[in-house]
Amino acid sequence: MTVSLATTMPLRGVRELPPNDQVQGFYLLTKIETRPKKSGEPFLIVELQDHSGKLDGKMWENFEAALETLKAGDPVFVDGRVDRYQNIPGLVLNALRKATEQEVPDRRSFLPHSSLSSAQADEQLAHLINTIEHPQLRALLDSIFGDKTLRKQFLEAPGGKAWHHAAVGGLAEHTLSMAALADLVAAHYPQLHRDLLLAGTLLHDLGKVVEFTLEPAIDYTSEGRLLGHITQGALLIDKMIRENCPDLSAEMRKQLLHIVLSHQGDPSKGSPIKPMTLEALALHYLDELDSRMSAFEQVRARTPESQDFSDYQRLMERFFYFRAPEGDDQPE
Amino acid sequence: MTVSLATTMPLRGVRELPPNDQVQGFYLLTKIETRPKKSGEPFLIVELQDHSGKLDGKMWENFEAALETLKAGDPVFVDGRVDRYQNIPGLVLNALRKATEQEVPDRRSFLPHSSLSSAQADEQLAHLINTIEHPQLRALLDSIFGDKTLRKQFLEAPGGKAWHHAAVGGLAEHTLSMAALADLVAAHYPQLHRDLLLAGTLLHDLGKVVEFTLEPAIDYTSEGRLLGHITQGALLIDKMIRENCPDLSAEMRKQLLHIVLSHQGDPSKGSPIKPMTLEALALHYLDELDSRMSAFEQVRARTPESQDFSDYQRLMERFFYFRAPEGDDQPE
Amino acid sequence: MTVSLATTMPLRGVRELPPNDQVQGFYLLTKIETRPKKSGEPFLIVELQDHSGKLDGKMWENFEAALETLKAGDPVFVDGRVDRYQNIPGLVLNALRKATEQEVPDRRSFLPHSSLSSAQADEQLAHLINTIEHPQLRALLDSIFGDKTLRKQFLEAPGGKAWHHAAVGGLAEHTLSMAALADLVAAHYPQLHRDLLLAGTLLHDLGKVVEFTLEPAIDYTSEGRLLGHITQGALLIDKMIRENCPDLSAEMRKQLLHIVLSHQGDPSKGSPIKPMTLEALALHYLDELDSRMSAFEQVRARTPESQDFSDYQRLMERFFYFRAPEGDDQPE
Amino acid sequence: MTVSLATTMPLRGVRELPPNDQVQGFYLLTKIETRPKKSGEPFLIVELQDHSGKLDGKMWENFEAALETLKAGDPVFVDGRVDRYQNIPGLVLNALRKATEQEVPDRRSFLPHSSLSSAQADEQLAHLINTIEHPQLRALLDSIFGDKTLRKQFLEAPGGKAWHHAAVGGLAEHTLSMAALADLVAAHYPQLHRDLLLAGTLLHDLGKVVEFTLEPAIDYTSEGRLLGHITQGALLIDKMIRENCPDLSAEMRKQLLHIVLSHQGDPSKGSPIKPMTLEALALHYLDELDSRMSAFEQVRARTPESQDFSDYQRLMERFFYFRAPEGDDQPE
Amino acid sequence: MTVSLATTMPLRGVRELPPNDQVQGFYLLTKIETRPKKSGEPFLIVELQDHSGKLDGKMWENFEAALETLKAGDPVFVDGRVDRYQNIPGLVLNALRKATEQEVPDRRSFLPHSSLSSAQADEQLAHLINTIEHPQLRALLDSIFGDKTLRKQFLEAPGGKAWHHAAVGGLAEHTLSMAALADLVAAHYPQLHRDLLLAGTLLHDLGKVVEFTLEPAIDYTSEGRLLGHITQGALLIDKMIRENCPDLSAEMRKQLLHIVLSHQGDPSKGSPIKPMTLEALALHYLDELDSRMSAFEQVRARTPESQDFSDYQRLMERFFYFRAPEGDDQPE
Amino acid sequence: MTVSLATTMPLRGVRELPPNDQVQGFYLLTKIETRPKKSGEPFLIVELQDHSGKLDGKMWENFEAALETLKAGDPVFVDGRVDRYQNIPGLVLNALRKATEQEVPDRRSFLPHSSLSSAQADEQLAHLINTIEHPQLRALLDSIFGDKTLRKQFLEAPGGKAWHHAAVGGLAEHTLSMAALADLVAAHYPQLHRDLLLAGTLLHDLGKVVEFTLEPAIDYTSEGRLLGHITQGALLIDKMIRENCPDLSAEMRKQLLHIVLSHQGDPSKGSPIKPMTLEALALHYLDELDSRMSAFEQVRARTPESQDFSDYQRLMERFFYFRAPEGDDQPE
Repeated sequence: MTVSLATTMPLRGVRELPPNDQVQGFYLLTKIETRPKKSGEPFLIVELQDHSGKLDGKMWENFEAALETLKAGDPVFVDGRVDRYQNIPGLVLNALRKATEQEVPDRRSFLPHSSLSSAQADEQLAHLINTIEHPQLRALLDSIFGDKTLRKQFLEAPGGKAWHHAAVGGLAEHTLSMAALADLVAAHYPQLHRDLLLAGTLLHDLGKVVEFTLEPAIDYTSEGRLLGHITQGALLIDKMIRENCPDLSAEMRKQLLHIVLSHQGDPSKGSPIKPMTLEALALHYLDELDSRMSAFEQVRARTPESQDFSDYQRLMERFFYFRAPEGDDQPE
Repeated sequence: MTVSLATTMPLRGVRELPPNDQVQGFYLLTKIETRPKKSGEPFLIVELQDHSGKLDGKMWENFEAALETLKAGDPVFVDGRVDRYQNIPGLVLNALRKATEQEVPDRRSFLPHSSLSSAQADEQLAHLINTIEHPQLRALLDSIFGDKTLRKQFLEAPGGKAWHHAAVGGLAEHTLSMAALADLVAAHYPQLHRDLLLAGTLLHDLGKVVEFTLEPAIDYTSEGRLLGHITQGALLIDKMIRENCPDLSAEMRKQLLHIVLSHQGDPSKGSPIKPMTLEALALHYLDELDSRMSAFEQVRARTPESQDFSDYQRLMERFFYFRAPEGDDQPE
Repeated sequence: MTVSLATTMPLRGVRELPPNDQVQGFYLLTKIETRPKKSGEPFLIVELQDHSGKLDGKMWENFEAALETLKAGDPVFVDGRVDRYQNIPGLVLNALRKATEQEVPDRRSFLPHSSLSSAQADEQLAHLINTIEHPQLRALLDSIFGDKTLRKQFLEAPGGKAWHHAAVGGLAEHTLSMAALADLVAAHYPQLHRDLLLAGTLLHDLGKVVEFTLEPAIDYTSEGRLLGHITQGALLIDKMIRENCPDLSAEMRKQLLHIVLSHQGDPSKGSPIKPMTLEALALHYLDELDSRMSAFEQVRARTPESQDFSDYQRLMERFFYFRAPEGDDQPE
Repeated sequence: MTVSLATTMPLRGVRELPPNDQVQGFYLLTKIETRPKKSGEPFLIVELQDHSGKLDGKMWENFEAALETLKAGDPVFVDGRVDRYQNIPGLVLNALRKATEQEVPDRRSFLPHSSLSSAQADEQLAHLINTIEHPQLRALLDSIFGDKTLRKQFLEAPGGKAWHHAAVGGLAEHTLSMAALADLVAAHYPQLHRDLLLAGTLLHDLGKVVEFTLEPAIDYTSEGRLLGHITQGALLIDKMIRENCPDLSAEMRKQLLHIVLSHQGDPSKGSPIKPMTLEALALHYLDELDSRMSAFEQVRARTPESQDFSDYQRLMERFFYFRAPEGDDQPE
Repeated sequence: MTVSLATTMPLRGVRELPPNDQVQGFYLLTKIETRPKKSGEPFLIVELQDHSGKLDGKMWENFEAALETLKAGDPVFVDGRVDRYQNIPGLVLNALRKATEQEVPDRRSFLPHSSLSSAQADEQLAHLINTIEHPQLRALLDSIFGDKTLRKQFLEAPGGKAWHHAAVGGLAEHTLSMAALADLVAAHYPQLHRDLLLAGTLLHDLGKVVEFTLEPAIDYTSEGRLLGHITQGALLIDKMIRENCPDLSAEMRKQLLHIVLSHQGDPSKGSPIKPMTLEALALHYLDELDSRMSAFEQVRARTPESQDFSDYQRLMERFFYFRAPEGDDQPE
Repeated sequence: MTVSLATTMPLRGVRELPPNDQVQGFYLLTKIETRPKKSGEPFLIVELQDHSGKLDGKMWENFEAALETLKAGDPVFVDGRVDRYQNIPGLVLNALRKATEQEVPDRRSFLPHSSLSSAQADEQLAHLINTIEHPQLRALLDSIFGDKTLRKQFLEAPGGKAWHHAAVGGLAEHTLSMAALADLVAAHYPQLHRDLLLAGTLLHDLGKVVEFTLEPAIDYTSEGRLLGHITQGALLIDKMIRENCPDLSAEMRKQLLHIVLSHQGDPSKGSPIKPMTLEALALHYLDELDSRMSAFEQVRARTPESQDFSDYQRLMERFFYFRAPEGDDQPE
């Protein structure tokens, strides 16, 4: 039997099915191990993942073949029924086997994806680069985003591991949203150097293409942890300037690198340098704004609709409040 | 002799005159006292102020009448010549007398003024209020800015004492710049409640009308120091809601006051509450952005053109860098 | 069968009963749901609460009627026996039904209560107000505490959710303890304005009447989270001054509101303004002292007698030590 | 000529005399040096001090004998007239000579003194010790304050160098004010061990007798800077327990030393340990309260009456506000 | 049957045995209690400890004699087989009885031990003291480490509870490693007073002999929590100076105590005083270096070899990275 | 007249000459301007600098030629006499003219210099590189320090602007002192990768060659302020690896760059990344140790011998204490 991935039930949906519903589909296997039953005999425990989340599964018998042939990271076909234990949903599996390359041509389909498609992002990026009039900045952007590998990495990379834009394509979504804002803001404050601000925006998080990996899930690379995307971005941009843009002035290089280094605003937030130019200051606040807007929506999406407040958000040391300002407005 | 205020030499200009140039004009007297000469006899020392800054003056003789009739806060007519002592410019006065009401009809002319005129601000404000569609928010804004006293205070109040928008009309300039941005941002993020964001922007710093005084200079009132503009704003808005807007829902009142209370972003910056709604978050970053853009330009204006960097800015714990990204670009 | 609430076994007591003891009584139902048994059939899980704490209960069969008629927040009658699972005490229920209004006339009886009764607090409050000689402050206190709704809210409100005075009546207990101290301290430092200090003490936490709800448990209201009790108190007091005390001088209003705004001592503790007057400084330290004395005793009460030290107290970043300074004093 | 110290004009008074008034009296010489006149010839500059403050003096001629015989730290007799230079008051000296032992029997008279006399402090101390009923704590206090040298040091030591109780006798004044408060507070919270709290209060700052010197002015000793009064106090008390109080239990010693070590409340304020017992917590807040009350009054005393606010107080990061809550109360 | 302790299987080893393996040996009993089976009848749960870690054990029947005769802290003989529940290894016991004094002559054998043996430490200590040439410092060290009780405590005490050198003998290991470094550093910077630096190093953590207990496990004593090892060390050294080293100069005492008080570098790290002398500064950084080197190795030892990074280390707010700088070096 | 620079009196020495002593010599002119005398006529004020410090000079007449021909940054010949005004030493000039290239062949002689000569540093550097056995690390060091320009910059660059090693050659002095320590420490902790630690030490501050300029004084370049030496170092090393060391493994590159990025230990100290490897941790503490040892000696050198304590050191928030531990040791 071949089930196309598109018709597979998302795991978020599976969580909400009533007990005993049947489920069939393709998922990523992220853990596989055995544990003893009360009787002492083993049973199989697996963790499954798709773009909508994760779920555990148990297989009580006939799992020997699966255990021998499967390992974490494999795409699998699953046939089971919904189960709840201590109110936590799971699956009891009847069948579990490795999926074929035809069935699952790309394992990245199991990761969360930005709502901005790669094609849309690609087009927006091309359009924005086209608006840059400063010849050397334009040449630098052309050289960086004209590198096919780099452009592909940029369009696929996540914006973060867990907090904001934590999805395939999240880096591009965040960058392009900020760039559209930067355009508006540069018109509002004419003293801003529009092309520098735009170029800085497009490049500020470039280091994330090497800070993160998508295999088998969104996570830091060891180079990402040891060097950080800010320095990685500066190294990459400096290399491209040296190799491809000999005409970019020392002053422009300095101010562009300064923007990249300072965009998180403060040493306590990971930037070795504070923003000291007008463009670096503006970019920092646009980055804050766009990342918080995204984080707020991500938290809202995983909060049950019945809650007015999110759970406590440790990273921002606060709750978020979701009630519409004009609702039925009953007295508390 | 009657000299119209408009033709008076600004004190910033006086500072740059060569020694021995003659100066005549109207200024605000902000200090007056005598000190002994080497010989033991007294001479007169005064401090003069206009919208462009301050300057000291000395009067070696014939100052008895001035000393008897003048006090700090008086507008005066001055006749003197430029002098430098230890490279600090000053005036040696030949004549010093109180100016008449005809000569100086309004002492606020001696304070720094926003480049946005009161009439322009008034018009922009009217236009922005007109765009608010939510009936109760519109009613609240009409009631607050329809109060003539309050509207006049709002148009005159400074945005701060020393850091950003520290000028007559600075509050309106800052508020209206932010409101224009808020309009753009609300279009960019459709999940924002545009009218709430706009109303919050127009009201977020309203308490500054009572936090500051313009007499005789921009300074905190004692109520401003003891209560702070955030609470003062909340008290004022809450009173207007109670008295004039009984139809504004409890939910909307709560979210509007929340925006006012949280707009500085963090307890360490003076906000008793952190932003927890989408609109409060967005407004906070727009406030940061607009106040930093203004502060940067104010610091640039008082830094000699020959300096690439500003003096150290204690409030932001950094230098500012002013060199254009594309200049003559000599090697360092 | 009708069992009066007074004779119901407190849940803290139930926790210590040996397994299989029978229990009957009235409690608040705070959660109700079903889970599957091993066999796949469901059983009922409930959470019960009274003034002494919480306990889980299970019902293996015949729970259909209960499940249909009951919801979280209902007062219930319970008949069961004590059970332990993994050393955690619980109840196995034989019967579970909604309690009648006669059986449970007031659900607040299920919350923890201050050891100071409402009647005692009421009397102490009346006495303290009587000692205020300053006519306008006296008038303000009369107007606030003479408002029957407000006085009732004040006598019932908790002092906090979890840390100190976290009980019905806790706000009054804390306020009155501080007021008695303030009286002593005002006599010790004659430079203190006694009536202002007393009035400030009685009003400093007034906003907690709207910051917290008692239904179905002590928790923040959404307005409490979004505005905070400090601003809520200032809004409430300012409204009462405006409506009822036109004779209170601007200076006194300013200093009284300053005390309310600054009583937590520092922005990092939630006060938008630091104490700048003698009375505001004194009140802040009395607030710290009284809240810590209460917190210490609350922690002591929930620490087993065999422990010399409490568990680690995250809020105060320390352990508490309970051993009497003069005990049997064995060598360690 | 012999002028008794008591009739000497205090330097604070001298500051306010009109120019050319004559002054005679005894002061402490704290600096003496020569500088060149315009002509190249030297003149003498001295700094004089008494309990009310400091003043500079100049001697234009005939100062050779003074220069040869005097050094900083000498008590001197001065004959001069008041002078002002750049609005700073000073003295022009006619005569300057060393004072005799008869004229100035005790140089400490030149330091600021607590308003509580040494005799009053001594009596209050004796009374308080008498109220201690716990035999071993009583024995310890008797041994420490019965040591004549230590008692004298305690009665003379300052409470600080500049901030609060910065005067001869300041330590005793602070300690005894806190002890009176501790007595009230122990009655208010019966769970406090009254004798431990009292003993802790009397001993908490004992180390200041070695942390500070009075010669020639209130300043840190090098041991004070390198060890700190908290450790110095603990060392002193531990030595007295070992040598004189073998019956004091290990538990009581531990809790008493804990109070001394933790009384500043937090590592960031200089206490190596945070208060963990009820008595240590209470004492900490009483210490905060009493030291702030004193600091406020000290700042008030040196602020001109015309100012509503003090100058900015760096140590407390705020202004103090002095206006009486009920004054003439004009609109701002 | 008598099994010598030396042949007992370490619990770390037991954890890795396959299910159903038999285990016999001597361990420390650290918890003992009963819980009900599903049937309602009780079974026995115990916690066992040795120098390599901890493990739980269950005994389903015939445990009545064990329950009556054993308590936490007893050394026991155990006979059981390995079991896994939810992937956590444990023991199912057949036999459990108290071990005799012959079988377990010293319960400290059940704690983790430094890799530096007590005899090696003793010898290194003797050697280092022998290199001290300053007669009074030498006398002080002889008096402290010549005290047999104190030397024994020093050789046994741990360096910490959980972070670094958390083992029997850890204090000596850390002290002697630092002393060897101090020797090298004193040669590198000739301006350092070598004997003072060495003596300070040997004594800096001396207070840990009373801060920690080894019974029944490494933990803080209540005196350790209430006074802290820094003050305890200062008290101990000061007592030894007073009693045994009357010739040590006041200056040297002051500087030595300063080193002890300041060695953690900053109030926020527990030192009431910051290092102000050259020796105190040097010692502080050597302490940081040696404790971090030890902590890194401890964390490495408990991290599975397959992980490149440690788990997040809260105390140092980072991950540790373990991969060798030159390995097989595959692309990431 | 030609005076060789070597015989010029150092300005530090000039400061201590008695008034009216004659001085001749070569200095750097760092400021030149005129001010009016009392009479209104101008006189000349200049600032002079050499390796020992700075001094002001005045020229009352005949300065017109000097004023026309000289500008800040010029080396000058000076003939004058010592003068004191308000106890501040200065020079009154008789002659002032530009020095010739023969007289002052190198203006860097006017800056403070490390006590380690450039030749000594060069030799030590060569020796240390020779000890590196790891072929790729050795190749990298050879490539960087074999670049003649870079080696010269490295040997001349300062270690800082004001705090530690603030002298020509200070970077090399600091680096080589740390490298000698690193060698000792690598032997003490065998788990350290000695060659990586050594290479990291030699390269950790390399970015300072572009962060600082020596013309006309030690100061930050604008690139230094905007990018910082940490990133500048990483960019430089990465470029050298790419261009010259293709065989250096990715793992080694990552760990080496990690050391450079993390060497200041913490974001709050300017490192974007915290040390996570053993070598990065060790290097950080050696850097702290060596820079503090240098700073202490620099502060000692500028503190008068009569002071036991330095002035307050804002950067380290403490005083330094200089008294020898064994001195005459009088009681305080």
